[in-house]
Amino acid sequence: MNRIYLDNAATTTLDPVVLDAMMPYLTTNFGNPSSIYSYGRESRLAIENARKTVAKILNAHPAEIFFTSGGTESSNTAITASVRDLGCKHIISSPIEHHATLHTVEHLKHAGEATLSYVNILPDGHIDMEHLEQLLADSSVKTLVTLMHANNEIGNMIDIHAVGELCKKYDAIFHSDTVQTVGHFPFDLRNTYVHFINGAGHKFHGPKGVGMLYINENVKINPFIQGGSQERNMRAGTENLYGIVGFAKALQLATDNHEADSNYIRGLKYYMFEELKKVIPDVSCNGDAMGRSNYTVLNVSFPKTEKSEMILFNLDINNICASGGSACTSGADAGSHVIRAFAGNPNRMAVRFSFSKNNTKEEIDLAVAKIKELI
Amino acid sequence: MNRIYLDNAATTTLDPVVLDAMMPYLTTNFGNPSSIYSYGRESRLAIENARKTVAKILNAHPAEIFFTSGGTESSNTAITASVRDLGCKHIISSPIEHHATLHTVEHLKHAGEATLSYVNILPDGHIDMEHLEQLLADSSVKTLVTLMHANNEIGNMIDIHAVGELCKKYDAIFHSDTVQTVGHFPFDLRNTYVHFINGAGHKFHGPKGVGMLYINENVKINPFIQGGSQERNMRAGTENLYGIVGFAKALQLATDNHEADSNYIRGLKYYMFEELKKVIPDVSCNGDAMGRSNYTVLNVSFPKTEKSEMILFNLDINNICASGGSACTSGADAGSHVIRAFAGNPNRMAVRFSFSKNNTKEEIDLAVAKIKELI
Ligand SMILES: Cc1ncc(COP(=O)(O)O)c(C=O)c1O
Ligand SMILES: Cc1ncc(COP(=O)(O)O)c(C=O)c1O
Repeated sequence: MNRIYLDNAATTTLDPVVLDAMMPYLTTNFGNPSSIYSYGRESRLAIENARKTVAKILNAHPAEIFFTSGGTESSNTAITASVRDLGCKHIISSPIEHHATLHTVEHLKHAGEATLSYVNILPDGHIDMEHLEQLLADSSVKTLVTLMHANNEIGNMIDIHAVGELCKKYDAIFHSDTVQTVGHFPFDLRNTYVHFINGAGHKFHGPKGVGMLYINENVKINPFIQGGSQERNMRAGTENLYGIVGFAKALQLATDNHEADSNYIRGLKYYMFEELKKVIPDVSCNGDAMGRSNYTVLNVSFPKTEKSEMILFNLDINNICASGGSACTSGADAGSHVIRAFAGNPNRMAVRFSFSKNNTKEEIDLAVAKIKELI
Repeated sequence: MNRIYLDNAATTTLDPVVLDAMMPYLTTNFGNPSSIYSYGRESRLAIENARKTVAKILNAHPAEIFFTSGGTESSNTAITASVRDLGCKHIISSPIEHHATLHTVEHLKHAGEATLSYVNILPDGHIDMEHLEQLLADSSVKTLVTLMHANNEIGNMIDIHAVGELCKKYDAIFHSDTVQTVGHFPFDLRNTYVHFINGAGHKFHGPKGVGMLYINENVKINPFIQGGSQERNMRAGTENLYGIVGFAKALQLATDNHEADSNYIRGLKYYMFEELKKVIPDVSCNGDAMGRSNYTVLNVSFPKTEKSEMILFNLDINNICASGGSACTSGADAGSHVIRAFAGNPNRMAVRFSFSKNNTKEEIDLAVAKIKELI
């Protein structure tokens, strides 16, 4: 059986069209973008064009777009700078954030640089907006709110505008980890109250090793990685030229095909859940999968049995890729901090399926048939 | 006239053999190295094999090798961790370090996290070893010494063993920025007193956007970029899979061909200087070019005239790539902090030529003929 890849929230294939766009920069056009001669200027131009493409798509200014090594570096930069450069002495986050956020805010807390509050998570996996407002209202110091746009494990999405408006009301800095949504949803940053968002190329058929940080022009921060004057003194280090070109190309493709692709992928997600219910009556969703949710992610909950506990292992043997939670902790076997945060039933097994434009209904049928067999 | 690229200290071409090694990971093998299924494990294996290759070449333990986004991130990590995690309250560096070092140490100084001393630079561009020992002897707190192995602008090299022995004597932490020497010189880290060295793939015909940090097993630091448990909890973020594979392949190739390539490149450097002397009698070298120097770099000093001040510009028009200093600041036009630090003659123009295995004698002849014409 061919491999069935249903783990697109972990990473996606590099689109061959994106690779084609990168190839000139992997071969002949290798000049250092910071070099003054024409050869370097060609590289610089490629980077500045990439920046314009990304800015246009997000409806931001090119001067607000910075390329980094990935989503994690971008989150580290935004959160650390909010505390060290923007004077935030209190951080409001949630227990279901990605570790790039959680480990950074916990670190700042332990270093005594900021206090930390977590907003409550409702049983459907959404953040408790009333609690968020309460936390903001009770905060007597400059505050950073860092809440992810779409959760990578369960797909739940915040209402980024509603959270932004709350932040505006209480004059808070707002960072939203948009790694699961950049390249999957339209953005209109000029009309969104948000100071930082981030993206990672490999989550939308772009290259690994490259990410983006949007820094709203109204905030001025210092670089997280210091050295040369690259990225207008905001991110030092010789630029990942082909990565940046690939990032922009992938975002362009995703945007051009957004409507068709998102409808198609959403169809696969709904279809899979319907099919699963037919074969496993007791299946349910973790999070608000059929509500305010990322169309790429379906996190299902199986009753815990000897068989279901082995499900990921057995899916792997059958060449079906799915995951128990986020990839970056799956080795750790510590269970999911996200599922634990709101669905405290230890008698259920969580499995995340996540889809891309490359998946087919036939693959879903095969996967469901195999799951039926295995459970 | 075809382009003559004499700026290999800024960046190098990606070797086609390296690109070939990367291609499988840019196409079919895209699995997230942290995923538990077999598809992810294939990626993990590629990374661990890359780590073993790098470790073997440097005579280090695989557990001491960490992949990063580049030389700059590695320097930031080593220096910051030395202060924050290893208790160094005094930093000894030099005024001719790369900005990745200088901006990081200045930042730590201004933040009041460490005091900072600069070792004197002798007229030949070498560090004053007696002054270094004096600074170490006078230091009453835990000290970090951060001194680059080979200077990127003038090529001067420290005696890494001699500096290491001094650090050992005074129980200092030693970081050496080896971005210009990894891939160009053999290393024997098990027999070198050094705690951190770093490398950048694009300086030795590997990919941009990927670097390495060696952390001696005797020191324990916290990650600089926090999040997922990648790189054994030392560097979070989805791994730059193809970059890492390319880094190791490029280092392997460079090592296999080291003797022939280094002799050949050294020959080009010496040849160029001899030829330049024939046409411009007043030419001299910045630094110890014919002494303890990197064979890839030749920094020459021309008498300042109306014509020589335009030399880089005119070389560019003639399709010859050379640079005035390091690439990452060349846009800034602030002159070279390196040249200023030891050769305070404002009546000279500095031009850096830097070579690779891909350059030829014919290119040198053409370049020298053009320089003669232009000066
Ligand atoms: C000596 C030295 N250190 C550090 C760096 C930084 O490396 P990168 O720009 O790849 O991050 C460079 C090159 O730019 C260098 O020459
Ligand atoms: C929501 C979210 N934030 C941040 C990240 C980190 O991105 P990266 O691993 O590319 O650095 C990921 C993916 O791993 C993610 O899903």
